[in-house]
Amino acid sequence: MRAFVLRKVGEVGVVEKPVPEPGPNDVVVRTTAALVCTTDVHVMRGVIPVAPDVTLGHEAVGVVHALGSAVEGLVEGQRVAAAGITPCFQCDSCQRGFSSQCHGLMLGGAKFTNQRDGTLAQYFLVNNAEANLAPIPEGLSDHQALYATDMLSTGFVAAEHAELELGETVAIFAQGAVGLSATIGCRLLGAGLIVAVESIPARQELARRFGADLIVDHTRCDPVERILELTDGQGVDAAIEALGSPETWEAAFRVTKPGGRISNVGYHGEVREPLKIPLEPFGYGMADKQVYGGFNRGGRGWLRRIFRLMETGKVDPTPMTTHEFSFGEIERAFQMMASKEGGIIKPLIHFDGSGGDSGDDGA
Amino acid sequence: MRAFVLRKVGEVGVVEKPVPEPGPNDVVVRTTAALVCTTDVHVMRGVIPVAPDVTLGHEAVGVVHALGSAVEGLVEGQRVAAAGITPCFQCDSCQRGFSSQCHGLMLGGAKFTNQRDGTLAQYFLVNNAEANLAPIPEGLSDHQALYATDMLSTGFVAAEHAELELGETVAIFAQGAVGLSATIGCRLLGAGLIVAVESIPARQELARRFGADLIVDHTRCDPVERILELTDGQGVDAAIEALGSPETWEAAFRVTKPGGRISNVGYHGEVREPLKIPLEPFGYGMADKQVYGGFNRGGRGWLRRIFRLMETGKVDPTPMTTHEFSFGEIERAFQMMASKEGGIIKPLIHFDGSGGDSGDDGA
Amino acid sequence: MRAFVLRKVGEVGVVEKPVPEPGPNDVVVRTTAALVCTTDVHVMRGVIPVAPDVTLGHEAVGVVHALGSAVEGLVEGQRVAAAGITPCFQCDSCQRGFSSQCHGLMLGGAKFTNQRDGTLAQYFLVNNAEANLAPIPEGLSDHQALYATDMLSTGFVAAEHAELELGETVAIFAQGAVGLSATIGCRLLGAGLIVAVESIPARQELARRFGADLIVDHTRCDPVERILELTDGQGVDAAIEALGSPETWEAAFRVTKPGGRISNVGYHGEVREPLKIPLEPFGYGMADKQVYGGFNRGGRGWLRRIFRLMETGKVDPTPMTTHEFSFGEIERAFQMMASKEGGIIKPLIHFDGSGGDSGDDGA
Amino acid sequence: MRAFVLRKVGEVGVVEKPVPEPGPNDVVVRTTAALVCTTDVHVMRGVIPVAPDVTLGHEAVGVVHALGSAVEGLVEGQRVAAAGITPCFQCDSCQRGFSSQCHGLMLGGAKFTNQRDGTLAQYFLVNNAEANLAPIPEGLSDHQALYATDMLSTGFVAAEHAELELGETVAIFAQGAVGLSATIGCRLLGAGLIVAVESIPARQELARRFGADLIVDHTRCDPVERILELTDGQGVDAAIEALGSPETWEAAFRVTKPGGRISNVGYHGEVREPLKIPLEPFGYGMADKQVYGGFNRGGRGWLRRIFRLMETGKVDPTPMTTHEFSFGEIERAFQMMASKEGGIIKPLIHFDGSGGDSGDDGA
Repeated sequence: MRAFVLRKVGEVGVVEKPVPEPGPNDVVVRTTAALVCTTDVHVMRGVIPVAPDVTLGHEAVGVVHALGSAVEGLVEGQRVAAAGITPCFQCDSCQRGFSSQCHGLMLGGAKFTNQRDGTLAQYFLVNNAEANLAPIPEGLSDHQALYATDMLSTGFVAAEHAELELGETVAIFAQGAVGLSATIGCRLLGAGLIVAVESIPARQELARRFGADLIVDHTRCDPVERILELTDGQGVDAAIEALGSPETWEAAFRVTKPGGRISNVGYHGEVREPLKIPLEPFGYGMADKQVYGGFNRGGRGWLRRIFRLMETGKVDPTPMTTHEFSFGEIERAFQMMASKEGGIIKPLIHFDGSGGDSGDDGA
Repeated sequence: MRAFVLRKVGEVGVVEKPVPEPGPNDVVVRTTAALVCTTDVHVMRGVIPVAPDVTLGHEAVGVVHALGSAVEGLVEGQRVAAAGITPCFQCDSCQRGFSSQCHGLMLGGAKFTNQRDGTLAQYFLVNNAEANLAPIPEGLSDHQALYATDMLSTGFVAAEHAELELGETVAIFAQGAVGLSATIGCRLLGAGLIVAVESIPARQELARRFGADLIVDHTRCDPVERILELTDGQGVDAAIEALGSPETWEAAFRVTKPGGRISNVGYHGEVREPLKIPLEPFGYGMADKQVYGGFNRGGRGWLRRIFRLMETGKVDPTPMTTHEFSFGEIERAFQMMASKEGGIIKPLIHFDGSGGDSGDDGA
Repeated sequence: MRAFVLRKVGEVGVVEKPVPEPGPNDVVVRTTAALVCTTDVHVMRGVIPVAPDVTLGHEAVGVVHALGSAVEGLVEGQRVAAAGITPCFQCDSCQRGFSSQCHGLMLGGAKFTNQRDGTLAQYFLVNNAEANLAPIPEGLSDHQALYATDMLSTGFVAAEHAELELGETVAIFAQGAVGLSATIGCRLLGAGLIVAVESIPARQELARRFGADLIVDHTRCDPVERILELTDGQGVDAAIEALGSPETWEAAFRVTKPGGRISNVGYHGEVREPLKIPLEPFGYGMADKQVYGGFNRGGRGWLRRIFRLMETGKVDPTPMTTHEFSFGEIERAFQMMASKEGGIIKPLIHFDGSGGDSGDDGA
Repeated sequence: MRAFVLRKVGEVGVVEKPVPEPGPNDVVVRTTAALVCTTDVHVMRGVIPVAPDVTLGHEAVGVVHALGSAVEGLVEGQRVAAAGITPCFQCDSCQRGFSSQCHGLMLGGAKFTNQRDGTLAQYFLVNNAEANLAPIPEGLSDHQALYATDMLSTGFVAAEHAELELGETVAIFAQGAVGLSATIGCRLLGAGLIVAVESIPARQELARRFGADLIVDHTRCDPVERILELTDGQGVDAAIEALGSPETWEAAFRVTKPGGRISNVGYHGEVREPLKIPLEPFGYGMADKQVYGGFNRGGRGWLRRIFRLMETGKVDPTPMTTHEFSFGEIERAFQMMASKEGGIIKPLIHFDGSGGDSGDDGA
């Protein structure tokens, strides 16, 4: 089969690999569609160290190709999705409720690319398949289901950690795909006022569509001052950092009230120095502020619940898809994702041959 | 001033009373608009014992008429609302987080009618006014603000106690004003599937408008069977009882999954026998089911957050108002509320004279 | 191997069975010690229907005898314990956090006896062994470890659902092994005042030793009146029902304050009628009272944490063991447990031959 | 009356002031005993800016001297305590559950010294007295009750924010009076293993007495390495920072597992630069770690619950008192507290004249 891999830091490409064989609790999925994630770009740049020639990608859906001997309740040919995080759900860390940190390893639930081949290939393997694979409901397209694997899931986790009470106020820093998903999440969780910080008009437009009440363009004003102004000087009840920069991280502390929650979902690995909490807005350690740093979550149950929100028409994330490619064009899609050219937010990759050269050759 | 009182069990009427005088922490409000509540009907019927000639009503808004000597931050003439519950926020019970049970008394936060004159009068007194009175934002009509005082507040409390995770399923029994508000609340709190049980077409229509995904008409099918069917035999994650009948109470246990939450907001005082939990659906006491019985909540902070949801256009409860009256017509409004004739859900009472004879004579 | 089974309702006995074979994710354990549970007595009486000739028991420890092909991190000969509940930790129900209701079945995590052979045999099989088997720390005896499998676990779950804040008050109805464990749990969780309701002097004595501050003997006074008296008429913040009778269930509502929590851990299957909630103490459905019905919990992580409390000397449950037997004497132990004669609380069963005829014949 | 005040930064002394007069909701208390707090030392050093000649102190008990006109439920001569934090319990911030940040001001609940005269005087005024003053139970000495006002309260808040599950592991950095109280709190809340980091033998001894299982002396080893070693390389479930130094703050991140909680209760105002979170132990923002920065809490209900833990013998904090003085000797007590000489932890100040010259001259 063909797989899109990291050859070495800075260099990606398509190679031939054998179709994976499932262990007793695994399932091998034939990929039908995928999204490319900025995390893959971090991997290419060497920020997240991985094994040589490992397959990239962790946002994909497909059909069951081969079942492990101990797997029950799934059948060949069934449409399925796995989250970008595929925890074992068996270890101590999973049982403590921190399945994204599977086996007590930092981000240990992130098996794709980090611990084994990812999903940007014609076939991919899913561990603990009963726990991780969710059947895709009939009424949902592959396109919709894809968004549950990482973007919505990660954005919703961010929104959950904002711990909003009904009607509270929240500021969300950056409206890339995760920030936009956090906006959807905050709207779903009863925020009274959602302030989105973003300068790109197309993203501002999506933010409004997904539930932002107010947009703050940080290139035209000081976003901290502006948010304080918009909240009568009091600040917001919660702030979400969905970018991964020192500036937005610090701003999140400055715009929150005493008693506020700072929910981080930005990846801060690109900057090689400690995150700084400004003292005064943190009450010198005593302002009843809470900080939570989380990321994507896995599991069939979680996917099912996200699917349901799409099935009943409450969420439609597909407007985030700005471009479409066949798997044969994956390198171009990836380069655009790296350069963020052409107003790209999320590129959708088709594996069904409709895009040209990505037909099934794995059998 | 004129006040609408309970003369004796079964008999209500308008009487003259002196305008109340504020104690140090009180504010006296001149009423501009009110809603009538089914609870007032319970009071008339003697189900809830109260003092003779006490003023009815607990859903009202108005303008500040007189301020207690110790009250700060409010000014005469300001538009304000108080919730139907006006706790002291000082006692042990309030400090334990159970302000609706103020002073450790069952429903002790319900001061209006139960402990002193209610709000269906030209003026009403609010205790602990700094804590209980919320300024009404400019962009909000009296009509909208009124719904925050009890209906939305009570419905939202019911929805909160359903303890929904994003995308979970919930069944709501009865779509009167509280049930409809619970539907709004569940939609706000991220329910994936909302099943509303209701037989009256106009209420079904409102339920759909407010967020119900499916309607079950219990006069046409067994609602328990139907809900199990709609959830692949598994049942819902949570059920809300918003009626106060033994049938819907028991059904709430039958339609929930193991691990499900039953949130009761129905008043069960009309039936004079214990509430029965069916054994098998409760796992003989071991199904990880949780039951919570709550009601309305008070406090300026809570009102502000509900107001915000209306200000930003996320909630508009006013379609629940089916009838309008002047205060001079209060007896007719009340009789309709008691008989539920004419498809009444909530009657809005105007105090500003526009409806006829309810002008200000209190100065 | 020899196994202690339910021949038919009302009749138990020891039979020969083959040593179980592990599936890919299972482990077979050679039993070294066990406790008998009152639940086994319920099974004998036919209250809980099970398959004919199924092995009884769910509180046992032992050493790893045979490992499934996919099991990692455990080795033959290792001392291990499994909780009486052995969920899959993979299904939707487990992922929603309700692993005791595994697969969405009421009490579905209770595999032993209910879904397959139990642990009162020379060998027993544990499903999803990586998730369910916990190595027993060196410093812990089999005797101590046994209590983690059900009694402490169940009692701690009951205490958790009392949702105590530091210094709050709690009443615990009945001080059998589960009630005593709930007492230990409430002491561990920061209760300020623990009132234990119990009439048997030996159990009262243990209750005091385990943390009860006050004992109420319900044979000498009305326990509801007495508890209200002891709390200045206010009632307790929480009540735990650890018996499974209509009287204690109802009393739990009567002794709690508005805002109180009722945590049920008693099994109510012996009485074949609905549980009744007295209306007035429940505020007619509006007193902010919460009811939770739970039972035992499984999982390696949970067992480890209970073990740690014993390792560091904070908990020693072994004084609950009133009698010791060899496995050859299991029938006598069981009959005493059924009749509750001789002041029995928990009988410890030795499998190591030291008690006589229970040597290993399974190889 | 005599009051111990900050004359200017760096200079303290006793001056004459009028006995305060209560407003409608206030109570004036005649002081009988007090403790000196390190926070008072911060104030003297100018780290926390206050008004000139303001009275220091916020840990005191006494008897009701004069009641405001609107205060109910308290009587003259009654023994009472107020926490060091005296929120209004009326404002939006209090109603959102953040009463320590009263009126939306950072640490706004800290009225004593920061917003008005403190308690190191012969009389002190308590605002919102019904909410803030707790009668001292008969069985409790002034000495015991004093510890509820700040040390136990603050330490318990720190322990609560560690969000421990039964049997989890926790490391507590520094065993001054707050750290020791956090140790008591973690023991009360069910920690399975408490590791206290402290080098002073007398404090180590108290830590053991109050519940620490292991002591790590950071002057003899690298505490991070040692704690990782003690937890099989996994780290602790939670860490409490009870010192207020950059080193212990950063160590708290390094010793916690993914999914761990960092509870800060140290005051970081002495170091004038941002708090730094080390990136890798924070998972670059994604390790499911939670940080909470809190401090003391007020309110009668809270005090009552702490009193109850002392009444029933579960907590005795008085061994933290290393020195005793009369109010006439307050300057010497304060200087010792500033220099930490003589192994001082907490100095108890008597106001009853027994220590010499501190008799009542306020009437």
